[in-house]
Amino acid sequence: MTDLVTLTIHEGLAHIRLNRPDANNAMSWDFIDALSTACEGAARDTSVRAVLITAEGKNFCVGGDIRSFASEPDPGSFIERLARRLHEGVLALAQGDAPLVVAVHGAAAGAGLSLAASGDIVIAGEGASFSMAYTGIGLTSDGGATWNLPRVIGMRRTQEMAFLGRRLSAKEAEAYGLVTRIVADDAVEAEGLAIAQSLAAGPTCAFAGVKRLLAASYATDLSEQLDAEAKAIGDAMRTPDAQGAVKAFLLREKPVFTGQ
Amino acid sequence: MTDLVTLTIHEGLAHIRLNRPDANNAMSWDFIDALSTACEGAARDTSVRAVLITAEGKNFCVGGDIRSFASEPDPGSFIERLARRLHEGVLALAQGDAPLVVAVHGAAAGAGLSLAASGDIVIAGEGASFSMAYTGIGLTSDGGATWNLPRVIGMRRTQEMAFLGRRLSAKEAEAYGLVTRIVADDAVEAEGLAIAQSLAAGPTCAFAGVKRLLAASYATDLSEQLDAEAKAIGDAMRTPDAQGAVKAFLLREKPVFTGQ
Amino acid sequence: MTDLVTLTIHEGLAHIRLNRPDANNAMSWDFIDALSTACEGAARDTSVRAVLITAEGKNFCVGGDIRSFASEPDPGSFIERLARRLHEGVLALAQGDAPLVVAVHGAAAGAGLSLAASGDIVIAGEGASFSMAYTGIGLTSDGGATWNLPRVIGMRRTQEMAFLGRRLSAKEAEAYGLVTRIVADDAVEAEGLAIAQSLAAGPTCAFAGVKRLLAASYATDLSEQLDAEAKAIGDAMRTPDAQGAVKAFLLREKPVFTGQ
Repeated sequence: MTDLVTLTIHEGLAHIRLNRPDANNAMSWDFIDALSTACEGAARDTSVRAVLITAEGKNFCVGGDIRSFASEPDPGSFIERLARRLHEGVLALAQGDAPLVVAVHGAAAGAGLSLAASGDIVIAGEGASFSMAYTGIGLTSDGGATWNLPRVIGMRRTQEMAFLGRRLSAKEAEAYGLVTRIVADDAVEAEGLAIAQSLAAGPTCAFAGVKRLLAASYATDLSEQLDAEAKAIGDAMRTPDAQGAVKAFLLREKPVFTGQ
Repeated sequence: MTDLVTLTIHEGLAHIRLNRPDANNAMSWDFIDALSTACEGAARDTSVRAVLITAEGKNFCVGGDIRSFASEPDPGSFIERLARRLHEGVLALAQGDAPLVVAVHGAAAGAGLSLAASGDIVIAGEGASFSMAYTGIGLTSDGGATWNLPRVIGMRRTQEMAFLGRRLSAKEAEAYGLVTRIVADDAVEAEGLAIAQSLAAGPTCAFAGVKRLLAASYATDLSEQLDAEAKAIGDAMRTPDAQGAVKAFLLREKPVFTGQ
Repeated sequence: MTDLVTLTIHEGLAHIRLNRPDANNAMSWDFIDALSTACEGAARDTSVRAVLITAEGKNFCVGGDIRSFASEPDPGSFIERLARRLHEGVLALAQGDAPLVVAVHGAAAGAGLSLAASGDIVIAGEGASFSMAYTGIGLTSDGGATWNLPRVIGMRRTQEMAFLGRRLSAKEAEAYGLVTRIVADDAVEAEGLAIAQSLAAGPTCAFAGVKRLLAASYATDLSEQLDAEAKAIGDAMRTPDAQGAVKAFLLREKPVFTGQ
């Protein structure tokens, strides 16, 4: 049996592949469990300095495997359990130190959209599309979409996607701020990989500090955030990476970062 | 005497009309009391599945009825009481289950802008304009503008509107994210009505859940929001609407939503 | 010895000049101490009704004076102390009553970007550029960038600047919402001055109220914000400025604001 989601870790880069191409990576219980296991594995491994999520097949991920919900005797409790398991994976990556690159081709819908939106960097192919999809079958969203989307595209466009079912093209998603950068459809994985490798060779202690500061940004007041920034920059300066980079800067050399 | 604001409820749709066209729907005490009474009525009626606000006359609403403030012996306490009464109506709609569509033609200024910004979906005519107006007479804003505007157009443009008095055209308001969609001026009410009717025939339990999640989005941390999403999607799945829609999806039929 | 940062107060306008042009206004300890002393002086002076920050030389500010960190025996504690001193100035202006205009020409990088982003109104020259720069030497950001940037350009573009080191042109910075308005490079200071003077002659009590409301916006819930708005508009209406402006409005005269 093929793994529904695979995780490979190589030279500081954790690569998670959605690997159910024949079902457009629809999220069944087994798929979600495999995905969150991969996310937790990537977050737990201290050698990991960047995470990349890509998908096999024609589409990134069409969301929940609706057929699998229908046959459950208690579908409400089932989908809540499903969401909670998915959220363990999403939270592991979000609270982890490594920046997350998501490379999207084809459709990202429902929980697939939520997963895409959770990236720190989101690369999309020209033909990619993004939709919330949940309300089409009478559901609210999961996977953090109601947290991440307002932060990246603002509240009005989030409401439009949620209430009117608007689907965004790659171009619209880039213009609104959901997507960092668009490339040709056949270049999505290569671009995602190049960026993730470059991040994995970067100042990853500093990236981890910035990730934590940005995650707290909206829900804090300026005074608390300034205090957190002062602590974080002190901690960053104490790392060998920063001290080496400062020396390299003064010698007009290129810095080398080891993640320490 | 004509009602300054009217409320009609028909087939799940609550339609609130600003009805002081000869005064550009300027908000006097009586107007605000009538508006908030209408909002509270719409929010209280459990048959209501969507709310639409439209305006009679040339302009949506030019804000407070300044003449009525000037004659008050204690204008500070008067305007604070006015704001508090307005806020009861705004909050009733915001905390209610039904999505709010606001259809704007002509000028939306001061509390009129605040009311427009509070919509979940905002339709504007090509000739509509949006301005905060308050500081022009030495006042701060009310009606939730300082809460909603940063969420839909970001902080910098909110500051520009507040401190420099910038007025947005409909096109700018759409580009920045204040307005969901622009239509011809004479199509504003019809478009607003069509969208509100479509929402009222939609998965309104799910809409209510999404509304609550989005309202909490910025002030919460990801972990709390994921927990709220998991609960909400479980609750949504327990509704007859979702269970019917899942069945319809699998049969490739169009779902029918009753709001249950 | 020349003052590294100067403060002049004239007709209600506090003008802070970054005045280390030969070093592109790089922030050494002495520079930061002078800057925060100027910010605190402007915030403390009750005659001040608007603050303007401009820079001498080719660039607005290239951020920390990296050479000065390198020679410190304990660079981590040094940079943390540096950040804390900078934050006293940033916070004094942010918590003060007066709106802050920042006029940027040339490069704004690192803490220079943070300072620019902290403005209520940001004017930029056509040739201005904006970059976070910190992670290039293995550091996290300070000066409030992780608080202000998501609020003005959204989370995705903040992440791109932080993790990929993207530098924004003036045009991009305006399109994304970091910059209020672009002017010709040689008109930046004059435009900043004109706007700051106009604000200093405006309804500055109301501006102070709006500033406080906007600062609280994202981290509060709607109900609390409506309560704060009602209090603020009552307070504003009790000022002579508002009462005079209401009278002027009714007489179709131009209001005169004294800041009382």
